[in-house]
Amino acid sequence: MSAAESRGAIPDNANDHCVGPESELAGKAASCAGCPNQAACASAPKGPDPDILAIEERLRNVKHKILVLSGKGGVGKSTFATQLAFALAAKKLEVGLLDIDICGPSVPKLVGLENEEIHRSNLGWSPVYVEDNLAVMSIGFLLPNPDDAVIWRGPRKNGLIKQFLKDVHWGDLDYLVVDAPPGTSDEHISIAQFLKGADVDGAVIVTTPQEVSIIDVRKEVNFCHKVGLKVLGVVENMSGLQQPVDSVRFLSVPADPAQKPEDVTAAALEALRNVAPDLSCLIVQSDVFRATKGGAESMAASMGVPFLGRVPLDPALSLAGEEGRSAFDGEAGAMSSRAALQGIIDQLVAKTGGLKVFSSATAHGNAHHMHAQ
Amino acid sequence: MSAAESRGAIPDNANDHCVGPESELAGKAASCAGCPNQAACASAPKGPDPDILAIEERLRNVKHKILVLSGKGGVGKSTFATQLAFALAAKKLEVGLLDIDICGPSVPKLVGLENEEIHRSNLGWSPVYVEDNLAVMSIGFLLPNPDDAVIWRGPRKNGLIKQFLKDVHWGDLDYLVVDAPPGTSDEHISIAQFLKGADVDGAVIVTTPQEVSIIDVRKEVNFCHKVGLKVLGVVENMSGLQQPVDSVRFLSVPADPAQKPEDVTAAALEALRNVAPDLSCLIVQSDVFRATKGGAESMAASMGVPFLGRVPLDPALSLAGEEGRSAFDGEAGAMSSRAALQGIIDQLVAKTGGLKVFSSATAHGNAHHMHAQ
Repeated sequence: MSAAESRGAIPDNANDHCVGPESELAGKAASCAGCPNQAACASAPKGPDPDILAIEERLRNVKHKILVLSGKGGVGKSTFATQLAFALAAKKLEVGLLDIDICGPSVPKLVGLENEEIHRSNLGWSPVYVEDNLAVMSIGFLLPNPDDAVIWRGPRKNGLIKQFLKDVHWGDLDYLVVDAPPGTSDEHISIAQFLKGADVDGAVIVTTPQEVSIIDVRKEVNFCHKVGLKVLGVVENMSGLQQPVDSVRFLSVPADPAQKPEDVTAAALEALRNVAPDLSCLIVQSDVFRATKGGAESMAASMGVPFLGRVPLDPALSLAGEEGRSAFDGEAGAMSSRAALQGIIDQLVAKTGGLKVFSSATAHGNAHHMHAQ
Repeated sequence: MSAAESRGAIPDNANDHCVGPESELAGKAASCAGCPNQAACASAPKGPDPDILAIEERLRNVKHKILVLSGKGGVGKSTFATQLAFALAAKKLEVGLLDIDICGPSVPKLVGLENEEIHRSNLGWSPVYVEDNLAVMSIGFLLPNPDDAVIWRGPRKNGLIKQFLKDVHWGDLDYLVVDAPPGTSDEHISIAQFLKGADVDGAVIVTTPQEVSIIDVRKEVNFCHKVGLKVLGVVENMSGLQQPVDSVRFLSVPADPAQKPEDVTAAALEALRNVAPDLSCLIVQSDVFRATKGGAESMAASMGVPFLGRVPLDPALSLAGEEGRSAFDGEAGAMSSRAALQGIIDQLVAKTGGLKVFSSATAHGNAHHMHAQ
């Protein structure tokens, strides 16, 4: 956290050398002369934000807090956060999933609870329960119409995030997973500030293999260093596409662009039966998003942060999200991403020390258990 | 634009029924009593932001302005904005590309100009030139170190966006393409406000096929309606993967998970030669991101906005971005996305009426010209 941040949010129109609105000198320092905020600063209450103490108190019974971040959007951050929450819940842990992407909340869709509403009690806001031990909070549950745009500037977003942390009654939790929007702006500065007394385990940073995404991850790692947030590790998502050969189509494209492509899927699969009599064992693999400069693993090594593994681009994982369900349910062989996800999640559990006794009998989808390299 | 927005940015800590800091009554209305901003509002200059007039003046010689928006990140918005700029420049038009994604600028990488710097003259900030007729401005050119995180809250981001609009000396432009970050927050409210006198043609909204992305597009369309921004159309990106069969690998996966998969690519390609003697004509097609509810086309129809077409998920397009070059250079047959992109861009040109005389001789990559459906 920069010195300025620890002195409270400095208004954009503040004078140079602003001491910060939370300083004891706010409104009275030499640099305050002529500042448009001087009167407001001089009369405002001093000292640290009392809400931060309230947040600390509220989250006292949450053993572990993991932030899921990304530099760039659309890398599968919310999908990862959701599947992490599902996987932790499958281990019979008490899990909370908090979505602080105020303008683009994906979590309600990804957990299959789009039409739920939040209720208030004297204990606070009640989250929505996906399962008995998996509670979720998102602005998506607060919108009268899911298509409504949330056209909010930073302060209002920050206000709601604070309220989520201060007022949601999670009860006792083993893990709180926080899904952040992409970037390093209001939501990120705020959550780091709000949770500074709440003993956060650290952040997982999700990326895709391309350099255009890795550039933003470097920024995110530097953000974590600046605000004092431990980087638990980096996950490379959409890392190579793997799909069963019988799920793709084969098209023959004539050299003459005026002619239409011909679907030759049946003939192609018949020909491939000579290679693999059981086509369900044959996988088509390709690099859709190419790591032109070594991808996340070499970036993690050069920045001195742990690399947690690669999750292949898997249409079945995307579909699990669309259908709002755990990727660990259903047939074991159906998903190329499952073993990789499970390996990464197990590493996170080990790193945060959250599971003293790990009983594989209670964990779902562990048949193909494999640690990602 | 909401009533509140037209009255200037209302501070987060303002009283209810704030008349807005730009109102003639600011600091003097009944609702100002006790507001911490009362003194600042009462003494601040009234009336509309003079910078908006300066922006209008600065952009007077820019014929067309197109905003590229998305609800969700990572849908290929910056890639589309960049390729739109490349394609317009290939038509011998004067083109500017402005990146207002302050925390995650991708444009410098996507145009292959990562280590450029901005120069100032008495005419303003000089953009960086990719080609003689393609100028680019991004915060990426202002960072001493490209890995630096830009940890800025809204007001500071808005300040830089205003400066980009007010101070960059573009000269005479046919098109200014503005690449926005995902969402509906500070950057979006600001750019709509700042450009309200500058006669914007409208916005292109980019999405991927999945419902989890479409949800956010609906929000973005509603945002455009609210701020009075015309929706030029919606583009569905990553819509089905198409790749040449000789660019994929075939793996045989044993039923026993303890055994390693075997690479059978050579045998598979040999077998497929019986179907298509010339393998370069054989395409593997699949839906990586599935539209579970009709995708962008049905969303556009139901929201009454134009659908511009689908761009397939094309590893060659991703690679063009990684290498910072136009997708319209190089071999015509190599990219499945090129014809679709070209068709969409031609529609945008037609909609904005920017090309009175369209000479196909001057347009690159037009051999496979085809309008997307």
